[in-house]
Amino acid sequence: MIMEIFFDIDDTLFPSSEFSALARKNAINAIISMGLKNDYDSLYNKLLQIIEEKGSNYGMHFDDLLEDSDNPPRYIAAAVAAYHDTKASIAPYPDVPLTLLELKKEHGIHIATNGNSIKQWDKLIRLGISLYFDQVFISEDLGVQKSPDFFARALKTLGSKPERCIMVGDREDKDILPAKEAGLITIKVRKGRFRDDESCADYEIHEISEIPAIVKNL
Amino acid sequence: MIMEIFFDIDDTLFPSSEFSALARKNAINAIISMGLKNDYDSLYNKLLQIIEEKGSNYGMHFDDLLEDSDNPPRYIAAAVAAYHDTKASIAPYPDVPLTLLELKKEHGIHIATNGNSIKQWDKLIRLGISLYFDQVFISEDLGVQKSPDFFARALKTLGSKPERCIMVGDREDKDILPAKEAGLITIKVRKGRFRDDESCADYEIHEISEIPAIVKNL
Repeated sequence: MIMEIFFDIDDTLFPSSEFSALARKNAINAIISMGLKNDYDSLYNKLLQIIEEKGSNYGMHFDDLLEDSDNPPRYIAAAVAAYHDTKASIAPYPDVPLTLLELKKEHGIHIATNGNSIKQWDKLIRLGISLYFDQVFISEDLGVQKSPDFFARALKTLGSKPERCIMVGDREDKDILPAKEAGLITIKVRKGRFRDDESCADYEIHEISEIPAIVKNL
Repeated sequence: MIMEIFFDIDDTLFPSSEFSALARKNAINAIISMGLKNDYDSLYNKLLQIIEEKGSNYGMHFDDLLEDSDNPPRYIAAAVAAYHDTKASIAPYPDVPLTLLELKKEHGIHIATNGNSIKQWDKLIRLGISLYFDQVFISEDLGVQKSPDFFARALKTLGSKPERCIMVGDREDKDILPAKEAGLITIKVRKGRFRDDESCADYEIHEISEIPAIVKNL
């Protein structure tokens, strides 16, 4: 049967959490390389605190971190350059590109993700897989976070029925539960921060390359 | 005699105009690669028009360019990624790093530039020469564009006198004339868009590597 397969992006198609942690570390190291006389741990912990308080989509993390330094532009420029360079070098889990192309031969493949539209498109472009997807559904464009309503709208766009659709994601709360409630078949990817969480998904996998066999047996 | 030598950045230390043109071209190509059905020339000319109207430090050039497309985030993300990747790959004119390090053995070397502080620091960092300079004077920090007053303030910070200072730059209006009026020795670099302009500079060079010989004979 021809299926419509939705994929989450972060920690489903690439190790998002690892790259974010690395980008922060590289930014702190770049600040210190430019001569700021603070120790690594105090800067890193202050940055984590700012991210927690202001959210990850706040655009001024490094401005806040460095506002009391003697020459903020010098250090902000170094931090932002190192952070962006790391984020620009993201790569998919190694089995992702070929698996997507294999699935694409017979099925529709789509993105279903929460977040800022430009940022999520940037990730797909950096991952080198942006042209693989038939449709890209992003919460900012739909006006609603991933939820039964989000999936109902996506299915309406595709003209498909829930029992012919599959949601693949790493998070029980954002991916599996809302998709299941909307009637989709669900596949939990055991990757990233939530890999060990309990799941009520129909299938559980460790690698994206396990999906074609699951789809074949539906 | 120990001198204080000020350098402009854009088109003096690296081919800024060429990289800007390349970044714009790469951005337009990336938009078309993502599937937008517009021709290259109409997109490129519209972008140039937006830059002229809004100024080069306006942060939403691609948002404006693509506001009427059917999926702006897709194309904006592609354009911004290509643009930033090009800007991140800037490199100095090949004789710049060694010449600066040679001058630095005996003299003070400094930046004197107009512009946004973080953007100008970003360029120095990307060029790999940010740590070479003893002082970096940027118009945004000083609160005044390059002018006799700008140089008077910079000299006050250094505790130096104009006759012991040299300004190196590509532009008659922004570099040579204000520095000359402030009493500095001036060197015009014949690079970039203004290479063929008439100049009243004390010295004219085609390559930065010509500076040590000039300084030696002062």
